[in-house]
Amino acid sequence: MRCAVVGGGAWGTALADLLARNGNVVLLWAREADVVESINTIHENARFLSGVRLDGSLGADSRLDHVLASAPELVVFATPSHATRALASDARIVLRPGTIVVVASKGIEEGTLALMSDVVAEALDAPRVVALSGPSFAEEVAHRQPTAVVAASADRAAACAAQQAFSCAEFRVYTHDDLIGVELGGSLKNVMAIATGIAEGLELGMNSRAALITRGLAEMTRLGAAIGARPTTFAGLAGLGDLVLTCTSSQSRNHALGAAIGRGATLSDALAGKETVAEGVHTTRSARALAAREGVKMPIVETVYRTLFDGQSPRIALAELLARDLRSEED
Amino acid sequence: MRCAVVGGGAWGTALADLLARNGNVVLLWAREADVVESINTIHENARFLSGVRLDGSLGADSRLDHVLASAPELVVFATPSHATRALASDARIVLRPGTIVVVASKGIEEGTLALMSDVVAEALDAPRVVALSGPSFAEEVAHRQPTAVVAASADRAAACAAQQAFSCAEFRVYTHDDLIGVELGGSLKNVMAIATGIAEGLELGMNSRAALITRGLAEMTRLGAAIGARPTTFAGLAGLGDLVLTCTSSQSRNHALGAAIGRGATLSDALAGKETVAEGVHTTRSARALAAREGVKMPIVETVYRTLFDGQSPRIALAELLARDLRSEED
Repeated sequence: MRCAVVGGGAWGTALADLLARNGNVVLLWAREADVVESINTIHENARFLSGVRLDGSLGADSRLDHVLASAPELVVFATPSHATRALASDARIVLRPGTIVVVASKGIEEGTLALMSDVVAEALDAPRVVALSGPSFAEEVAHRQPTAVVAASADRAAACAAQQAFSCAEFRVYTHDDLIGVELGGSLKNVMAIATGIAEGLELGMNSRAALITRGLAEMTRLGAAIGARPTTFAGLAGLGDLVLTCTSSQSRNHALGAAIGRGATLSDALAGKETVAEGVHTTRSARALAAREGVKMPIVETVYRTLFDGQSPRIALAELLARDLRSEED
Repeated sequence: MRCAVVGGGAWGTALADLLARNGNVVLLWAREADVVESINTIHENARFLSGVRLDGSLGADSRLDHVLASAPELVVFATPSHATRALASDARIVLRPGTIVVVASKGIEEGTLALMSDVVAEALDAPRVVALSGPSFAEEVAHRQPTAVVAASADRAAACAAQQAFSCAEFRVYTHDDLIGVELGGSLKNVMAIATGIAEGLELGMNSRAALITRGLAEMTRLGAAIGARPTTFAGLAGLGDLVLTCTSSQSRNHALGAAIGRGATLSDALAGKETVAEGVHTTRSARALAAREGVKMPIVETVYRTLFDGQSPRIALAELLARDLRSEED
């Protein structure tokens, strides 16, 4: 299969490498000239995925139209959520009709509160959209550690084609039909990772981390149900699986940002000197707005919002959160 | 309230200390004379919970009849699961009718395949049984780190009385009415902790750990549904919460045992020199038998069983598990 990957970050690079290793013809679009050169000359993305030897057949280019004009049957978007609409709009005129579009970006667009598959489908006028999500640190995928994810689409044939393109012994892809649930899980987990990071920065221990993850999944599931997702989706790889991964590992940028806040940094301190803003910072704003629109209570999202944007003390905010007056667990 | 705690391990001691701090009159039964002496003289359980200064009002005694004859309104069983029936039988003649019995032990009795609340209710002929479960490392509870658990009972007044006795600012207790689900979650999570420990010993990475936890919760929920538990219970503190805690922390003895097996130890190597057998070793056998009785597929339990008891190579067993042929996630 001829494939294009839009986005030369760690995740885009790992997915491009995976497709290439599986025998597909793959061209990667990256904005940064040094990333393109590094991939084409030394078969490494030295800036975003250093130390990984990429498949020799993988090429990179910084001209989006050129990459898409290679007539791919499958295009992957692995861009930061706030950049996705503009890139998809640019891609529109060169995209072949019928191309399967895999969305690996995770987020909720600010303003429109649209999920990335909607953003891409709308901007590209492409109906065959698949969301790829699940517990998957790019570095581990690149190092061929066992990983399991889901490919979700309303178009079953498109989900199966994506499954086929990405699957190998170490990377298991399960099909799924609940696109909304799969995408929402992948997006909201970044907010929860900030929350558990804050708790870690405050040294609140493992018991409270486990309680936060549990309550976090419950509020993710509530929001999902309100916008048409199936609750059971959140118990799967793209919900619980990705949530657990992101909330329990210091590799997550969102978790690290929360930990810095918990130790006393302001948001601007925590972002200073970082090349990219952790996705969860954007998602906190849009998830809060989505919860308000749908009338769903999301106390953890609210707590993270106040801590990041309203200057509330993390210690007080977390104490209030953990002391909420609930008597029965299922209230 | 007058309380007795049966079992002087880390968890029994932490719960006894918590009850004492909350103003209850508490007597702890411990089998070991050194534990009793250590608590009564230096207010510490030097053997099982060293470094924690216990409440000065907490007393200990090694005579079970004496402890129970103090006419407690609430008795806590925090014994290893295989010792619970014998201790409850011994307690029967001295127990006051109407006493609330809190079961903090987690396991499935071998042979009968009964949950601990059933074992205790049967042996004591006591109807007012409450299971206390949730993500709660004893050391963190003793150090007053924030913790949230559930108190589950078919007898709502008994659950509320237990909630009242244990609750304080740092230790939140939610009532629950699904006794079977709450207990099964607390028991089966120890098997899953062995599984993720094995994966860690094999250095399979965080992605596969998250996938195992997700699949683990799914098979726990399936078994629960088969024996009358509510699936939603497994998404709560006593299911997901406790599972995440136990599977993601090296503090868990079950996880540590799995890690040793993953690094190449046999079960007898891994148990050598240990004072107590990790609870999950027993639960693996009984969970497998229960799954067989109910006709429920539990591939992770089966894999752990074969690795512990049939001498199967952990690397091959985990590879087979992770490569199971599932096409849609919800199959």
